[in-house]
Amino acid sequence: MIKLLTEKMREYNDSVLVGIGDDAAAVTINKDSNLLAASDMFVEGSHFLLSKLSPRQLGHKALAASISDIAAMGGIPRFALISAGWPPYIDLDFTQEVYRGLQALAACFEVQVIGGDTVKSPQIILDITVLGEVKGAPVTRGGARPGDLIAVTGRLGASGAGFNLLKSPAANSLLIPPGARESLIKAHLEPYPQVEAAAVLRKGGGLGAMIDISDGLASEINHICKASGTGVLIYADKLPVDRETRGAARLLKLSWLDLALYGGEDYELLVTMAKADFTRAKEALMHKGIKLTEIGEILPATEGVLIQKEDGVFPLTAGGFNHFR
Amino acid sequence: MIKLLTEKMREYNDSVLVGIGDDAAAVTINKDSNLLAASDMFVEGSHFLLSKLSPRQLGHKALAASISDIAAMGGIPRFALISAGWPPYIDLDFTQEVYRGLQALAACFEVQVIGGDTVKSPQIILDITVLGEVKGAPVTRGGARPGDLIAVTGRLGASGAGFNLLKSPAANSLLIPPGARESLIKAHLEPYPQVEAAAVLRKGGGLGAMIDISDGLASEINHICKASGTGVLIYADKLPVDRETRGAARLLKLSWLDLALYGGEDYELLVTMAKADFTRAKEALMHKGIKLTEIGEILPATEGVLIQKEDGVFPLTAGGFNHFR
Repeated sequence: MIKLLTEKMREYNDSVLVGIGDDAAAVTINKDSNLLAASDMFVEGSHFLLSKLSPRQLGHKALAASISDIAAMGGIPRFALISAGWPPYIDLDFTQEVYRGLQALAACFEVQVIGGDTVKSPQIILDITVLGEVKGAPVTRGGARPGDLIAVTGRLGASGAGFNLLKSPAANSLLIPPGARESLIKAHLEPYPQVEAAAVLRKGGGLGAMIDISDGLASEINHICKASGTGVLIYADKLPVDRETRGAARLLKLSWLDLALYGGEDYELLVTMAKADFTRAKEALMHKGIKLTEIGEILPATEGVLIQKEDGVFPLTAGGFNHFR
Repeated sequence: MIKLLTEKMREYNDSVLVGIGDDAAAVTINKDSNLLAASDMFVEGSHFLLSKLSPRQLGHKALAASISDIAAMGGIPRFALISAGWPPYIDLDFTQEVYRGLQALAACFEVQVIGGDTVKSPQIILDITVLGEVKGAPVTRGGARPGDLIAVTGRLGASGAGFNLLKSPAANSLLIPPGARESLIKAHLEPYPQVEAAAVLRKGGGLGAMIDISDGLASEINHICKASGTGVLIYADKLPVDRETRGAARLLKLSWLDLALYGGEDYELLVTMAKADFTRAKEALMHKGIKLTEIGEILPATEGVLIQKEDGVFPLTAGGFNHFR
């Protein structure tokens, strides 16, 4: 069965010496690169409900998380190990669809599936390890310097809006233009890791810190400040929250700002750099069709982690609000 | 909490550029080595019962499986990623004990824990990925040649005997000398991966195929023959089943041969090599206190996968018998 499922995954290039089917996989990485490794575990009931996403989307989303982690270090994803637990109520068609979703996203980034494990379990479990490589030093969370600006790729809050649309009664979300509804739900169920953006940013040089937005902007900003020993001032009115997300927020009676700050799973990149480097970085990304938006400034740690809203400046804590857990 | 649990694991050497706590880990591997990767998933109820092992043994055993996989490729384990799902009925003390068991075994082999994931789940899940390295080509399952002998490290059936002792009524196992009982149960709950044996065998050169015994000798022999396109003849009377295991088998009314062939989880190495290389390999291992026993001969595929017993020669299939699932 495993063999059947993974046949498509067994078309390897030269960098794979031994793929699926032996005790361990054996691969080569570039001699001048460092190895990156990230794992993300998804458990049915804790992280997803089968009623809310297709098996193909499940495969996509589970792999996207770890690929995004590799991108956030400034790296290129290369290989994946897929450990899966399947319960008795899941049939072969379902598992094949999950692997198809995985394989389709892996193919986008030339990620080769080299191993993993398949076991019986009471509910679906997917634990995916992605191995990547980075030339020279990786970009950590700890590289922000006071005076840097902080910027974000793409748009914020779309995944959170999609999540809440999926939860809300159908009648409610029918009021949203179908295209917008589809786009927001897709942002939640089929997030696209910003590997290309990371490569462009890395190539441009001058990056301070970088992190991917998996738990929400507020949480990730706090991670950067803690690891870097800095503070920050975020400008709420600069956050790239688009018309679709704002429209959905109104209908759902949610604040668009809360969606942006706490929504999570946007899988955009949050990055700090010297102000002098921003225009060049923004233009390089624009050539690839990727938006980069300046959203604030890194401060000394003594200033704290702050957000400027319409009615004043407030501490920005990671928790505090919660439609999303 | 994760931080607390993993503090001990964060004492890294120079090969770890970024450990636990960022989006991904970053490490260096030797420039002239290939990278090995293996994952093994353990789910409470499917793979272990909390009533039968201590949390420390759980951590040990979960890590041992993947380390053994790396050894079976002729490699050196270097790094581990630990993904864990913890249910609400597990407290912090328990998880700390699991991590202590993991860490103690990791320390034996200088394996550094560089990452993973921690999530909520309905039952305990441990999915462990071990990264290793091998200079030159790895030793696969596919390298056996007709005329090679096949040999095994250590003893067989001890883990299966231990498993059945744990299952059997206490009164029954009281008939076994306490030392033997303890030794067999330890073989099952705290298997010791044969990393050193693999290194010695690899250094000696001339290896054909190698595999670790996780699913039982019969199953692993079939894997080698299938991957190598060969047959085999195993001699039942040469299998290294020691006095402790034979004694336990008698008391448990099980066949010692079945324990050796189908017991599984011995985590010994099964290896093929030219006959001319055996004495040297055996002596090199003896210097390390590790036994190597010749148990049969690789044949052309047309001969089949066979075992010579007292009463004749029989096909040796992977399944067929089962006290162990």
